[in-house]
Amino acid sequence: MRAVDIIRSKRDGGTLVHGEIDAFVQAAAHGTWPEYQLSALLMAIWLKGMTPDETAHLTRAMCDSGKRFRWDDVPGPKVDKHSTGGVGDKTSLILAPLVAACGGIVPMMSGRGLGHTGGTLDKLESIPGFRVGLSEHELHEALRAIGVGLIGQTAAVAPADKKLYALRDVTATVESIPLITASILSKKLAEGIDALVMDVKVGRGAFMQSMPDASALARSIVAVGNANGLKTEAVITSMEHPLGRAVGNSLEVIECIECLKGNGPKDLEDLSVSLAARMIRLGGLYSTEADAEAMIRGALASGAGLEKFREIIARQGGDPKVIDDYTRLPLAPHRHVIKADRHGFVGDLHAGHLGHGGMVLGGGRQRAEDSVDHAVGVYIHAPVGTDVRPGDDIMEIHYRDESKLQQALHWFETALRIDSSAPVMVPLIRDTIA
Amino acid sequence: MRAVDIIRSKRDGGTLVHGEIDAFVQAAAHGTWPEYQLSALLMAIWLKGMTPDETAHLTRAMCDSGKRFRWDDVPGPKVDKHSTGGVGDKTSLILAPLVAACGGIVPMMSGRGLGHTGGTLDKLESIPGFRVGLSEHELHEALRAIGVGLIGQTAAVAPADKKLYALRDVTATVESIPLITASILSKKLAEGIDALVMDVKVGRGAFMQSMPDASALARSIVAVGNANGLKTEAVITSMEHPLGRAVGNSLEVIECIECLKGNGPKDLEDLSVSLAARMIRLGGLYSTEADAEAMIRGALASGAGLEKFREIIARQGGDPKVIDDYTRLPLAPHRHVIKADRHGFVGDLHAGHLGHGGMVLGGGRQRAEDSVDHAVGVYIHAPVGTDVRPGDDIMEIHYRDESKLQQALHWFETALRIDSSAPVMVPLIRDTIA
Repeated sequence: MRAVDIIRSKRDGGTLVHGEIDAFVQAAAHGTWPEYQLSALLMAIWLKGMTPDETAHLTRAMCDSGKRFRWDDVPGPKVDKHSTGGVGDKTSLILAPLVAACGGIVPMMSGRGLGHTGGTLDKLESIPGFRVGLSEHELHEALRAIGVGLIGQTAAVAPADKKLYALRDVTATVESIPLITASILSKKLAEGIDALVMDVKVGRGAFMQSMPDASALARSIVAVGNANGLKTEAVITSMEHPLGRAVGNSLEVIECIECLKGNGPKDLEDLSVSLAARMIRLGGLYSTEADAEAMIRGALASGAGLEKFREIIARQGGDPKVIDDYTRLPLAPHRHVIKADRHGFVGDLHAGHLGHGGMVLGGGRQRAEDSVDHAVGVYIHAPVGTDVRPGDDIMEIHYRDESKLQQALHWFETALRIDSSAPVMVPLIRDTIA
Repeated sequence: MRAVDIIRSKRDGGTLVHGEIDAFVQAAAHGTWPEYQLSALLMAIWLKGMTPDETAHLTRAMCDSGKRFRWDDVPGPKVDKHSTGGVGDKTSLILAPLVAACGGIVPMMSGRGLGHTGGTLDKLESIPGFRVGLSEHELHEALRAIGVGLIGQTAAVAPADKKLYALRDVTATVESIPLITASILSKKLAEGIDALVMDVKVGRGAFMQSMPDASALARSIVAVGNANGLKTEAVITSMEHPLGRAVGNSLEVIECIECLKGNGPKDLEDLSVSLAARMIRLGGLYSTEADAEAMIRGALASGAGLEKFREIIARQGGDPKVIDDYTRLPLAPHRHVIKADRHGFVGDLHAGHLGHGGMVLGGGRQRAEDSVDHAVGVYIHAPVGTDVRPGDDIMEIHYRDESKLQQALHWFETALRIDSSAPVMVPLIRDTIA
């Protein structure tokens, strides 16, 4: 089976057979095709697509190119949530402890932030000492002891995805539904989970900017997950404005802890609870969404979720005292407040611009190899819909470097719009694919 | 200007600006983009196409990536003919001396055979001593002295094309009209010619199998050649059956010499004369096709073309005595004759199958690095339309190796069909694009 024949078949709109897909994935994992053949096939896939069956097999083959975890000796349903990434999207830190507190097992493998979107690992690493690089053995022990571990992708998982993702990034072949589906799900399958809730973000702060695109990705992920024996559901949630009020690693950790204490902003709490409830219902702990949600809300109200988060931090080497003393987190030395210049309603806080501003402050990465300043970010005092008067605080920028602030201010200022009439508020969850 | 942005633009069906095309071509020539980015862009071009202006600029940039010859001190119009390749397609060896004998200057840069099609260089090299690797200086001297030089592509010419052609071959991006156009014409522009006649072959022995494909390529080449200041015309000629009666390097050289002696098969003579006449008319030596053709036929009848071929051979280090003594050419030790098994008409001699058979005998290359046996081939005694009786000779296979003959026989036998009624004969020249 020659690479050039496989490329030609896809170029001509053909359907690749399983053996051809296997050859491609093995070549990516082991370097047996030159990169110019991998990238030519990626471009052909980008432009010609893949059938659901091709995508499902690509996903399985990419997962099988590396380690696939099994947690047979850990009782309870293994469940996870994955998001396509947004601004202020911090639900993982809230729902993972809530689900574990309710009996779900959460072997969550997350990524780092890139571009204007944040990453769960960066948020966790703002907690002094927190180790996201657990070994398989350590993760196994964590699941056995407390039902949850929050880690980064290990080198053993889906090596074909690592290779292909790096190539896609530099060959303009990222935004392909089959390739995105296979990339996400190959790693989720490797986690050894039974059920997955996918949060597909849509809007100006998200990778998918339109509902048709988001819907197509959500449907692909649900179909391919289920075709590979993973119970999968997706929610499509709006990412026009940031989720919650904090954007920036330490600031978001504080907001998550506040949320677990019962003081979170409503949008963040509601979405975290909803996703967590779907996870335990899909994992089979409850048969109805209402029962599942009642259980999650109970764990939130009782403080069981907060205590589980404390256990996670302690188990993974972090300083659990941060839960009671936020000054133990890295905090930025300076603050700059943007105030309302007129009477009106906050009509827009453009998620993409705010995320970009946070990246410029040093809180995110332009390139994967950049380092991150965990302290900087922005806190929104007046979310969309707030009735403001001249001089009212809209957002507070936490910064370290004056010159970076000046570069970032443009993004924050253009993110804000004050209107004379109140905006129409739309529900955060725009669709559900089950 | 980032490679990934140029790739994305073409992926999305955009039109590349000149600077973007220049960046791509320079990257190919100098290795400043990784090959995976070159191949991703090649696939995007293959699938999304290029406008005539993009193709014209790509051609110019690829030519300018290397040496572009000038022959200002050689009087007379500089003209060439190029063919997309066929089976038994040997017109270059006939028309180049005829044109030079009539005052045209022919700095012809040709290629080697690949797959089932032969190459002019391989044919010339069956003449003992013949050197196709003239230096620029030697070619210049040849043009000054005898008006013609037949050489291979030098390393200095169109290095971007060399790189891209090698990548296209292994990434299934060969059959693209803009890419083929740019590859052919970048090298023809580098020859420093004023006029080009393009012979686009169509049919089962050609690269282009259908008239719409051949027509699209011919139109592209004519448009892009003229856009770059090269007077260009194209003829589309049938390649269903071999051209002439000989297939194989030495056998074809003999047929060319016979043709220059006035004993050539009619199809070969007519096409060679027609192409040669177009060359000198397009070069401006004659204003009408009829005058030009009369002049070429005169050079053929007078033996001036044959004498010019003798001069070419002598000038390029070959043994000119081959013209009078074919036994000085490499000839195969064994012959096998395929005879008619019934009464009827030769209805088909499938050019692709015959070419493939010749390659299997050792007369062609499967890979570019293969060596070639100049002696082997096939001579057709009964071309399409011949009325044959059982036992009549149809074709004579010249072979060296019994086991290769056995492998090749399948191709020769399936190439032949004998029908009970006479076939409809169609004109060789199917269309002209001026």
